[in-house]
Amino acid sequence: MKINYPDDGLALHTDLYQINMVEAYWADNMHERKAVFELFFRKLPFGNGYGVFAGLERCLDYLRNFHFTDSDLAYLQDELGYREDFIAYLRTVRFTGNVYSMVEGELVFPNEPIIRIESTLAEAQLVETALLNIVNYQTLIATKGSRIKQVIKDEVAMEFGSRRAQEMDAAIWGTRAAYIGGIDGTSNVRAGKMFGIPVTGTHAHSLVQAYKNEYEAFHSYAKRHKDCVFLVDTYNTLKTGVPTAIKVAKELGDKINFIGIRLDSGDISFLSKEARKMLDQAGFHDAKIVVSNDLDEYTILNLKAQGAKVDSWGIGTKLITGYDQPALGAVYKIVSIENEAGVMEDTIKISSTTEKVTTPGQKKLYRIIDKENGKAEGDYITMHDEDPTHEERLKMFHPVHTFVSKFVTNFEAKDLHVKVIENGQVIYDIPELSKVREYAHDNLDLLWEEYKRSLNPEEYPVDLSQKCWDNKMRNIQEIKEMEHNFIDQNGGRY
Amino acid sequence: MKINYPDDGLALHTDLYQINMVEAYWADNMHERKAVFELFFRKLPFGNGYGVFAGLERCLDYLRNFHFTDSDLAYLQDELGYREDFIAYLRTVRFTGNVYSMVEGELVFPNEPIIRIESTLAEAQLVETALLNIVNYQTLIATKGSRIKQVIKDEVAMEFGSRRAQEMDAAIWGTRAAYIGGIDGTSNVRAGKMFGIPVTGTHAHSLVQAYKNEYEAFHSYAKRHKDCVFLVDTYNTLKTGVPTAIKVAKELGDKINFIGIRLDSGDISFLSKEARKMLDQAGFHDAKIVVSNDLDEYTILNLKAQGAKVDSWGIGTKLITGYDQPALGAVYKIVSIENEAGVMEDTIKISSTTEKVTTPGQKKLYRIIDKENGKAEGDYITMHDEDPTHEERLKMFHPVHTFVSKFVTNFEAKDLHVKVIENGQVIYDIPELSKVREYAHDNLDLLWEEYKRSLNPEEYPVDLSQKCWDNKMRNIQEIKEMEHNFIDQNGGRY
Repeated sequence: MKINYPDDGLALHTDLYQINMVEAYWADNMHERKAVFELFFRKLPFGNGYGVFAGLERCLDYLRNFHFTDSDLAYLQDELGYREDFIAYLRTVRFTGNVYSMVEGELVFPNEPIIRIESTLAEAQLVETALLNIVNYQTLIATKGSRIKQVIKDEVAMEFGSRRAQEMDAAIWGTRAAYIGGIDGTSNVRAGKMFGIPVTGTHAHSLVQAYKNEYEAFHSYAKRHKDCVFLVDTYNTLKTGVPTAIKVAKELGDKINFIGIRLDSGDISFLSKEARKMLDQAGFHDAKIVVSNDLDEYTILNLKAQGAKVDSWGIGTKLITGYDQPALGAVYKIVSIENEAGVMEDTIKISSTTEKVTTPGQKKLYRIIDKENGKAEGDYITMHDEDPTHEERLKMFHPVHTFVSKFVTNFEAKDLHVKVIENGQVIYDIPELSKVREYAHDNLDLLWEEYKRSLNPEEYPVDLSQKCWDNKMRNIQEIKEMEHNFIDQNGGRY
Repeated sequence: MKINYPDDGLALHTDLYQINMVEAYWADNMHERKAVFELFFRKLPFGNGYGVFAGLERCLDYLRNFHFTDSDLAYLQDELGYREDFIAYLRTVRFTGNVYSMVEGELVFPNEPIIRIESTLAEAQLVETALLNIVNYQTLIATKGSRIKQVIKDEVAMEFGSRRAQEMDAAIWGTRAAYIGGIDGTSNVRAGKMFGIPVTGTHAHSLVQAYKNEYEAFHSYAKRHKDCVFLVDTYNTLKTGVPTAIKVAKELGDKINFIGIRLDSGDISFLSKEARKMLDQAGFHDAKIVVSNDLDEYTILNLKAQGAKVDSWGIGTKLITGYDQPALGAVYKIVSIENEAGVMEDTIKISSTTEKVTTPGQKKLYRIIDKENGKAEGDYITMHDEDPTHEERLKMFHPVHTFVSKFVTNFEAKDLHVKVIENGQVIYDIPELSKVREYAHDNLDLLWEEYKRSLNPEEYPVDLSQKCWDNKMRNIQEIKEMEHNFIDQNGGRY
């Protein structure tokens, strides 16, 4: 391979401008000022009513190991021309800050801080790109998995998309995310090994082609595999495939566990209904029908509406790529920074695209849960020094249309941020993946059905506290004044 | 981390059914029969008129290193229950076959074999999933990169999508693929280090926020960076951003190389035109305007039509994910297998989805180039024992509508397959990446403009030789007869 250097670390998995900015901070001795950054997205994917957070495990692993390797530093100095004094500084950089994060499997909504990084300005800046790269993809696919499982309900949903995933990391971390979201297993053996996800699979068309006919192929497969699902569409599904599967199952009787058949092409609705009849007539009432072929939540909903007889759904491309919206737009914004006097000051980014205006200041995030019915009333963002947990009556208002408001009483305010890294040390123990998945599943009980339907769900409320809102308005005002001063001083438009 | 085993190899990066099938082959002592598989896709992505192949480098690396590690085997035996005799066999498996492949940067079209694997049945089966995972994504993004560059033409195109890529592998291999396709550089430093791609970047909004105002931020940045592009949209692009950039550039004069400004939000068409005027009025006629913000070939085409003044385009999400079609549907099909007597026999997969019927037999692929004008007349698929290179007059016919045909004379028939692995040894030396990119660029000269336009391009001809067509028809006939025999023997529908 013509790879210039060994790929021995992930610190360079960042945008070049992060390093340039850190150089400016370092040259001005600002690099060790405390800074707070928040990671959040502005819009839910797929028109879904909720998101499912995933990605924390890999983020923690990345942050724990953060350092520039010798080959990284050599590249920066020799190829990109960074000067030796700055390289010497980079050699010392580790992630030494605190990280507060939602846990994996948490329900997540637009504009709420998923992860809050409190670290030095330099460290927080350097890790932005990788954290977004991880969280954007994994949260996207956990959400897609949950969305698909909501439509599939009690039947089995399997992730079959490795060959269409966007390179290898996506195949394994995507299937992990989908599993968190509610998918029941995967065909990817490496993901099974790494994460303990149930792995499934039978055989492909090439087995039938190798044996020249279905009869020999099924018999041969059954010699070594007790649990048998036969793929019946290599030649003619109803005329040879299903009858041969039945014939072989009858011949082998108790010697195998005839689980059922798999359909991978053609008219799934028609074929599954006909195959069901044939299996039933042959006495195989418990035999399952597994289907796959470019499925997503829309085709599955349609197939169900047509009465397709399906027991297990294999979902590939559309799940592992989040096909109809293959990127989540999470961003990472600075909200507070230490000034020369050592005091934390809020900071804001203004934009002519109004939804891109950030909410300044170090903040906390609570889920407001009605104690009577156990349902979530909305999420509530406060300044870090507010504590709504013991308030009797909470005023929640719409973050854009502020005249829309409601009072909530008899509630539990659940702090959604867990301290996962303290002074650079990971202090959070990621639960077993099956527990994470269970947590995601149980979380859905918090939501009214209106938020969970796949088409046109209601918008779940994410509100700012009064103090948070006032602070944002004050910051916008300050920027506006700075602009006016600039224009006054520099004349006219300039 | 709760990872069960170290992630120490890629042999398990496969679908479970591949291993199940290999077990059946092995139990029947068929695993070492010679088999030929072909990798191809059926439809070009993005409505483009051509594809650009990428992925070979990583495929070669994967095949060269193919083996099951101790932890892989322990997982298969202890967790998935494979028996010891089969595990003992798997321990010995390496890839020992021959691989013929297009080279990276080659133009590629539907239904033509991109890679041909000739190996043992077992080995060829085990590597399917990973090869598809790699080629599907990298070819998709190389094609998207080429498509975008065709619209951008002579201006600079930069890949900025790491934070929205589908996990880490996609960020780096995607940017490599985009670079092959014609994109000029990337913001991802790790990709720069690994592949020697030019890396670019200046600063983000957070720099301005950290210094509280643009003036300080730009000055500070310029202290350590001679080449300066200032990001001007943190607060108010035309009222503070651009004027401040101009002010700082004037103050610093020759101390810096004021390259220009960057716009990342708002109305790019309006802002770029206004900014251009302001820069020109200030005497900075050579200052460049860099833009980014959810760009793809459609928005770029539109911005150009509106007369936007842009010198460099930063393309993120839409490029690195292939947003409007985030998966290429390449498949990997067995076309020939050794029988008991040691003779290679063709094999076919029939499907009720007609375009899924495969073309049987070991085949070769030629690009037919008109010697007079240097343009490609089409691609020509032959059986492996045909040689069209010295024919005087070639009959090419449409693979579906066979009555459409043409005769070609005075042509060069270029064999598009290079032997890259021989008996498991990589014998092909991947060229420097810049050479691969140059090759992809020069290849476009082979195509008439009609194939290269982004909207509704003409369909490039990919034809079968007469022998290849006849062989396919014969194979279909044989399968049909097998079906009829089965129905005769088993009665009625069954």
